[in-house]
Amino acid sequence: MKKRYLLAPGPTPVPERVLQAMSLPMMHHRTPEFESIMEGVRSDLKYLFQTEKEVLILACSGTGAMEGAVVNLLSRGDRAVVVRGGKFGERWAEICNAYGVEVINIDVTWGEAVDPAIIREMINKNKDVRAVFMQATETSTGVKHPVKEIAEIIRDLPETALVVDGITGVGVFDLPMDRWGIDLLVGGSQKALMLPPGLAFACLSEKAWKMVERSNLPKYYFDFRKELKNLIKNQSAYTPAVSLVIGLHESLKMIREEGLENVFSRHRRFAEATRAAVEALGLKLYAPKSPSEAVTAVLAPEGIDAQKIVRIMRDKHGIIIAGGQDRAKGKIFRISHMGYIDRFDLITAISALEMTLQELGYSFDLGIGVKTMEEYLR
Amino acid sequence: MKKRYLLAPGPTPVPERVLQAMSLPMMHHRTPEFESIMEGVRSDLKYLFQTEKEVLILACSGTGAMEGAVVNLLSRGDRAVVVRGGKFGERWAEICNAYGVEVINIDVTWGEAVDPAIIREMINKNKDVRAVFMQATETSTGVKHPVKEIAEIIRDLPETALVVDGITGVGVFDLPMDRWGIDLLVGGSQKALMLPPGLAFACLSEKAWKMVERSNLPKYYFDFRKELKNLIKNQSAYTPAVSLVIGLHESLKMIREEGLENVFSRHRRFAEATRAAVEALGLKLYAPKSPSEAVTAVLAPEGIDAQKIVRIMRDKHGIIIAGGQDRAKGKIFRISHMGYIDRFDLITAISALEMTLQELGYSFDLGIGVKTMEEYLR
Repeated sequence: MKKRYLLAPGPTPVPERVLQAMSLPMMHHRTPEFESIMEGVRSDLKYLFQTEKEVLILACSGTGAMEGAVVNLLSRGDRAVVVRGGKFGERWAEICNAYGVEVINIDVTWGEAVDPAIIREMINKNKDVRAVFMQATETSTGVKHPVKEIAEIIRDLPETALVVDGITGVGVFDLPMDRWGIDLLVGGSQKALMLPPGLAFACLSEKAWKMVERSNLPKYYFDFRKELKNLIKNQSAYTPAVSLVIGLHESLKMIREEGLENVFSRHRRFAEATRAAVEALGLKLYAPKSPSEAVTAVLAPEGIDAQKIVRIMRDKHGIIIAGGQDRAKGKIFRISHMGYIDRFDLITAISALEMTLQELGYSFDLGIGVKTMEEYLR
Repeated sequence: MKKRYLLAPGPTPVPERVLQAMSLPMMHHRTPEFESIMEGVRSDLKYLFQTEKEVLILACSGTGAMEGAVVNLLSRGDRAVVVRGGKFGERWAEICNAYGVEVINIDVTWGEAVDPAIIREMINKNKDVRAVFMQATETSTGVKHPVKEIAEIIRDLPETALVVDGITGVGVFDLPMDRWGIDLLVGGSQKALMLPPGLAFACLSEKAWKMVERSNLPKYYFDFRKELKNLIKNQSAYTPAVSLVIGLHESLKMIREEGLENVFSRHRRFAEATRAAVEALGLKLYAPKSPSEAVTAVLAPEGIDAQKIVRIMRDKHGIIIAGGQDRAKGKIFRISHMGYIDRFDLITAISALEMTLQELGYSFDLGIGVKTMEEYLR
């Protein structure tokens, strides 16, 4: 007998009451019942995104909403700056390239955050840059990027939008869209929102909506204007992912009940505790200077393959964490603390990590990680 | 106390065992467990699509897969024939237009099927047509189009693909992709597959995959080659809609257990019974010459607003059927018999329809619809 503990940075565990809501008989979307759910969801999404704008709900993975951001804001031949410090930064550049948007890459060393001064310099040198694309958390490296500082640079430029992939960010830490002046904030269902994957979100500022009017890139399924027109009638342009929207209704209620401030401080505490625990085990963080509250990326000890750690954790102990991606593969493993994770899930993960490291011949004080975590979380 | 009966042409009811499968704790997609589910799903989708090709699984509504079909097959300036005999035929044309594909519309009267001879004529006149887009069932009118006959016209043309929207078709009636020579068959989760909306499918012939190689329309999220590369490793290009895929695994098992032939004949019998019942009530079919086994479209009696019938059925009796869309709005109502619908759901729907019609002052023999249906279904 072995229980499963999911501590990967997406999908994350789905709360029992959300699973239950989603397992009710199928509901038709063109009914007053569903429209009333949509009305609640719209209001709660505004709370979550800290905005007065509508938050679009799309039936797709996060990447679909990222593509939507590019094709709705920009036009063929436009120039854009992309912060590339991991796999998801690279994805922004790939999407831009696919649509003929000229990309100026800011290549950031994996594990490091982008320096806002470089963005300022790039923008000053290239006055025709129409958008800056970045991540709130670069999930592949566990880095948190300085969104607020970058928003300050861009918010007064009338024709340049700041586009933030907040898939691993919204609902994890503070990203007040309106107050900071983010122009397009993307979210996903399978992270802090505690839902299965299959829904993505996009919220646009006034400035962004003006750019949408001018955009000439081809689009159909991800046409944001068409979605907005339907959303304000509590509908969607195409058949919505009904069961996921019903789950969303429930998970947003949970976030409201806990309160955004408490949600953020829970993530902060859990991230601190996780970092303290792995450091107590003598391990090094992959993103020590700017770690995210969503996921902690840890370098495997010298001579030990990180994939082996991930595999033993999973096959022997039932703990699902993530390995590294692309160039970080084999070098790091990643423990998520976002969404429906409690203290004892983290204690369990650290305990299993200790057993795994011991099995792999790594030398440390057995129990020191768990003890450190208890000190933080008691 | 009022129970709900869902007889709309999508979403359709989700079987209890599928709901149950989807309500298990969240599973990570990069695990042997999920990969083994994907392996089963791949094999069962081939059975459902009657093909030896891989069936791509996309996290989106059916419209997303329709867009995928256009952007993966064609190039800017290509010409395509679109069968436009309802809302979904129009959608093919809209997607083509959005991507700069030149459309030759074959406008078919709503409620009628396209005549294959017209397709042959169009193709002969326009040798450079790269694709013919059509629906298996035009859901908005309840028409079944002659896919087999059209496939015979196109299958020997080396550079022209037949693209069939089988969202309301696959798993309802026989659409043997390989045998007939359909080049791209699109499916959706929320119809005969008895799942919530949020998944779509696309299966491509050898000819279609060759066209994909040449296609230069921009695409990213709907890049079929990238999906195929991942699918054969039991993965997907982007985070899959995990819970829906797990539901799919279960619903495909149900279809296997019943057997495709039995599934088809069930839909045939239910459609016949529904048509007989509404005709016994003195009502007229909207698509009398080529009705689909998926959904029966019925003209409201003279002087009665079809939307009123739909509303009374829903609010007073708990029966969810669909009204007409666009130009058919107010004129027709649509009763679906696809997916997880049994005889007594249909008896219930006809019974509620009788009560509704009586309330609206329509004169007929009360009970005659139900009696006719019993004769067909006993």
